[in-house]
Amino acid sequence: MKWSFNDLAQVSTDALAQGADLSADITQNLLTTNNVWMMLSTALVFIMHLGFAGVEAGFGQAKNTVNILFKNTVTPIIGIVSYAICGFFLMYPGFDVPGWFGFDGAGWSMFWFAPENADVTAGYADGGYTYWTDFLFQAMFAATAATIVSGAIAERVKLWAYLLFTVIYVGIVYPIIGSWKWGGGMLDSWGFYDFAGSTLVHSVGGWGALAGVILVGPRIGKYVNGKTVDKPGASVPLAVIGVFLLWLGWFGFNGGSVLSADPALVSFVLVTTSLAACAGGLGGFLAGYFVFKRLDLGMVLNGILAGLVGITAGADVINPGPALIVGFIAGILVVMSAVILDKMRLDDVVGAVSVHLTCGIWGTLAVGIFSTNPDHSFLTQLTGVIICGITAFICAFVIFYVLKVTVGIRVSEEHEKTGLDSHEHGIRGYTIVYDE
Amino acid sequence: MKWSFNDLAQVSTDALAQGADLSADITQNLLTTNNVWMMLSTALVFIMHLGFAGVEAGFGQAKNTVNILFKNTVTPIIGIVSYAICGFFLMYPGFDVPGWFGFDGAGWSMFWFAPENADVTAGYADGGYTYWTDFLFQAMFAATAATIVSGAIAERVKLWAYLLFTVIYVGIVYPIIGSWKWGGGMLDSWGFYDFAGSTLVHSVGGWGALAGVILVGPRIGKYVNGKTVDKPGASVPLAVIGVFLLWLGWFGFNGGSVLSADPALVSFVLVTTSLAACAGGLGGFLAGYFVFKRLDLGMVLNGILAGLVGITAGADVINPGPALIVGFIAGILVVMSAVILDKMRLDDVVGAVSVHLTCGIWGTLAVGIFSTNPDHSFLTQLTGVIICGITAFICAFVIFYVLKVTVGIRVSEEHEKTGLDSHEHGIRGYTIVYDE
Amino acid sequence: MKWSFNDLAQVSTDALAQGADLSADITQNLLTTNNVWMMLSTALVFIMHLGFAGVEAGFGQAKNTVNILFKNTVTPIIGIVSYAICGFFLMYPGFDVPGWFGFDGAGWSMFWFAPENADVTAGYADGGYTYWTDFLFQAMFAATAATIVSGAIAERVKLWAYLLFTVIYVGIVYPIIGSWKWGGGMLDSWGFYDFAGSTLVHSVGGWGALAGVILVGPRIGKYVNGKTVDKPGASVPLAVIGVFLLWLGWFGFNGGSVLSADPALVSFVLVTTSLAACAGGLGGFLAGYFVFKRLDLGMVLNGILAGLVGITAGADVINPGPALIVGFIAGILVVMSAVILDKMRLDDVVGAVSVHLTCGIWGTLAVGIFSTNPDHSFLTQLTGVIICGITAFICAFVIFYVLKVTVGIRVSEEHEKTGLDSHEHGIRGYTIVYDE
Repeated sequence: MKWSFNDLAQVSTDALAQGADLSADITQNLLTTNNVWMMLSTALVFIMHLGFAGVEAGFGQAKNTVNILFKNTVTPIIGIVSYAICGFFLMYPGFDVPGWFGFDGAGWSMFWFAPENADVTAGYADGGYTYWTDFLFQAMFAATAATIVSGAIAERVKLWAYLLFTVIYVGIVYPIIGSWKWGGGMLDSWGFYDFAGSTLVHSVGGWGALAGVILVGPRIGKYVNGKTVDKPGASVPLAVIGVFLLWLGWFGFNGGSVLSADPALVSFVLVTTSLAACAGGLGGFLAGYFVFKRLDLGMVLNGILAGLVGITAGADVINPGPALIVGFIAGILVVMSAVILDKMRLDDVVGAVSVHLTCGIWGTLAVGIFSTNPDHSFLTQLTGVIICGITAFICAFVIFYVLKVTVGIRVSEEHEKTGLDSHEHGIRGYTIVYDE
Repeated sequence: MKWSFNDLAQVSTDALAQGADLSADITQNLLTTNNVWMMLSTALVFIMHLGFAGVEAGFGQAKNTVNILFKNTVTPIIGIVSYAICGFFLMYPGFDVPGWFGFDGAGWSMFWFAPENADVTAGYADGGYTYWTDFLFQAMFAATAATIVSGAIAERVKLWAYLLFTVIYVGIVYPIIGSWKWGGGMLDSWGFYDFAGSTLVHSVGGWGALAGVILVGPRIGKYVNGKTVDKPGASVPLAVIGVFLLWLGWFGFNGGSVLSADPALVSFVLVTTSLAACAGGLGGFLAGYFVFKRLDLGMVLNGILAGLVGITAGADVINPGPALIVGFIAGILVVMSAVILDKMRLDDVVGAVSVHLTCGIWGTLAVGIFSTNPDHSFLTQLTGVIICGITAFICAFVIFYVLKVTVGIRVSEEHEKTGLDSHEHGIRGYTIVYDE
Repeated sequence: MKWSFNDLAQVSTDALAQGADLSADITQNLLTTNNVWMMLSTALVFIMHLGFAGVEAGFGQAKNTVNILFKNTVTPIIGIVSYAICGFFLMYPGFDVPGWFGFDGAGWSMFWFAPENADVTAGYADGGYTYWTDFLFQAMFAATAATIVSGAIAERVKLWAYLLFTVIYVGIVYPIIGSWKWGGGMLDSWGFYDFAGSTLVHSVGGWGALAGVILVGPRIGKYVNGKTVDKPGASVPLAVIGVFLLWLGWFGFNGGSVLSADPALVSFVLVTTSLAACAGGLGGFLAGYFVFKRLDLGMVLNGILAGLVGITAGADVINPGPALIVGFIAGILVVMSAVILDKMRLDDVVGAVSVHLTCGIWGTLAVGIFSTNPDHSFLTQLTGVIICGITAFICAFVIFYVLKVTVGIRVSEEHEKTGLDSHEHGIRGYTIVYDE
């Protein structure tokens, strides 16, 4: 075929133009892939709520199993709803300049009244995910902050008081603190780094747990004549199921915090996360062996969680070798912390303060020590830890205190002794009988 | 370099031509991503079978635990095999014109005798997934219809009778009804809408459960002197594990029903699904509190499932606000339904009829009320509910009736009283003893 | 606009050039998608460790529950760490020519000292996944080899001896044998085929289990006067949870072994895997019924696992119909194998040898019978089975033997009788009491 100059001009212009179309398709494909990863990370973080339920019901006494499970079932429910009604828009207020408080009113209106306008094109979040994925991923995170509290104060806290606490903590306190870093607030502008929430999620939950433990007091018979009395958990298999599900969920908790499916970064994060979990388990194993002179499965399990919490702040900026160190130290710290808390007669049923607060702080500071990013500094990390810590603890303390002097936060002595299940729920956790 | 006119013609033709290659690669990449999502949705729906097993073994009595688990383990096995042998080809018959019955004989031959010809190119299902993913995703769905029945009639049904029922229901009844909408049959042409199966899966299972409950009769000692007697479940933790796994599985059940990884649509579906689950749990919580004057964990759990079943028909066309309403009403309905069934002496061990039938109907009708798609109408939805309902109930009733008058569908009074485990299976569900 | 010849030359050159950029983006997108699938497969294989824990703690006696869970919790921990320190680099030594032994020293240095150089670009593994995903996926696999051993010798093995065995087996023996096929060694060059490890993973674990069972001896009271005494497992629900999680995990074990998200191949693999699992369950069901005259849930569960192990060697080259046959035969073999082992007084608590060794061998040979690839031959398959089997068994036997004559591999008679939990761990697996 013989072409004219004009034919040729047309062909080459068309050829150049098709690049834009193809490029748009490629961008959209990448969004689709990123979004698949983020949705599955959301599902993985969701299943952490079953993990928490397993740990708490497994380590708690059989007479309170239903009560614990009730709390853990309702926590994600009211957590997600509170976050939809309020928290999400407090946490991502769209600060014009870095600040301490804001509310995304336009986002709120769109969510509830014009959801069809929700920005789901490739432009949202740099093509990492859609608006709806953003909300759901963050909502699953938010509810974990309350769940952490739940485990510490189990077996004697009034259920209604805990539920009211959860609404306020997940709907208001957690998202405001979160906005300081992840919402583009002041801590972010100062260079504070918290990849997936050693401070923003775990220590915020841990401070709430500490405030609760102080105000609600130890269980009856836990500390007798200066001795700590063991309260055997109902089901060790249930606790193991819980810890494995939490570990699994951390694939999404940390892996999803990359906020895209970036292959190099996400897979690196999964490796540091897994290595820290292993090292934490080993640390808990060895520390438990030296302290308690036995093969203490509880300490291995809490060591795994400690390693996971510890690496959470820096999973993307800490190399495999240091990740092992961070996890191993976390595993030792969780045992020491549990011993010290018992010495202080602070009764934490599942060791939530030790796992999430102690190791959340350690992990955040570890970024200042081991980060491969020279912009991260120990002092800035410490500043963030302190500011978030003071805020979370005071808020939690005030909420629990107000609840204490109004509706009350502790069940009656009789209920606690005979178990919360028969009084509040009317059924038992286990009914394993073979004769009628 | 100095180019001739012919050089230039070649370059620009090449440039235009490469677009087609790139475009094919892009289409293939999208298929790969879509297919990943669909395979993982398949895995999530698969794990729902463990969820059902947990709910049923948790709420059932300890003396029947092994029997319940046997049923729930074998159900996906014979469900998937029945669907491979027959159901899949009945459900997607490739109607030439919308109709009521067809069989894809060519597909059947290919599946079993020339699987290498199975269409797995990007053209299949508009690039949403491959032929094999299609089969497996649908097979996992199919087996749930029988599992729903299993929970309702547990603790007294003959195992062999249930297994025969399952083969027929999954292999023939469920897929034929399904073909009317999803296979392109009559209901589809009339504009009936059922996104992920409130009617086609859940109410079909629920009608089967109702027929079974009527024909097999209540458990001995369930209704005494006009009173309903509680039969405590063996393990509340197991039931909680079950419900959380079902909720997790619904990420795939509804999310996968988009039939691609379309980022905007899938993530929207996950949000409406999650909000409805939360609202259902709250509805069950409150209704349970008002009706039974206690914090009834069973009602919270069934409320969650009710919300999930309720949103299933319209998860892609109902906005977040209305999704909360749909779920909340479902949570209340499930409690009311359970109370009414007990009044009618219809003994449903796990509340399967209330969850899957009552809320399946509600969810299908809710599309007619809340859908953002103006083509959806309440009357068409009602028509679909009635046609599918009559068909499913009659078929299930006939199958169970024939089984009743032939092999029998109920174990002996002695077996029921002492528990099915020791008689049929020779082991107990739990052997927790510490002395030999 | 009127273009000059030079304008046109520029446009058409640009148009051609943009193709290279777009093509690079497309390649990178495919890597991202592939890597998402591989990371999620990794997560699925990880959760198999919870599956193994469930099966073993469910089938083991209640007095040893904590001990079993301790082993199963620590196994992935030390497995992953051993594999990071040594195994990974032994398994993928980068043989220049096919061989029997090598070590990737350069990779080891990079992993620990220059992780930023880890090759994560699209070039690694043909764009199937990144370096870090490669490591983690393989590490999750590696730890399963030891877990298989754990189940067989539970309830009487010394925990420290088992842990030492695990370090050596996962860190050295398993990866060297694996290198012969997957690392490009001799067996690979001979045309031996083992898609996802019927031989390399399952039979290697199974041979270790057999060596352990022989050397550690049967449990006290298992074989009395020529009769086999049943030792009832603590919790059948836990075993069911375990098997379902293992089946779920196999979506990643086999599906991930495609080493990319290739839609046609992966979805085909999931179908053959699922069909074989179903057929295995049916085979176990029927064989159990004929042999034991009861509906033996344990045989259904082990049948499912048998089917999964059986199809693992050829899931990508065996068609759906033959996959049903492979699984069904595996389900029958697992029952026969269990009976024969008991006749030989080889006491395997969970049937690990029958599931993983017997069916691992069967599955590997089945490739030689049913493969659609004409290059696969029965004799080559048999050769691989024998070479790997002799090596694995001798290594495991020597390790256990050395441990036996040094630290000892069996707990005292008193510990075994009263249960390992109270002696070594100081807590019980279940504490379900309602009175203080």
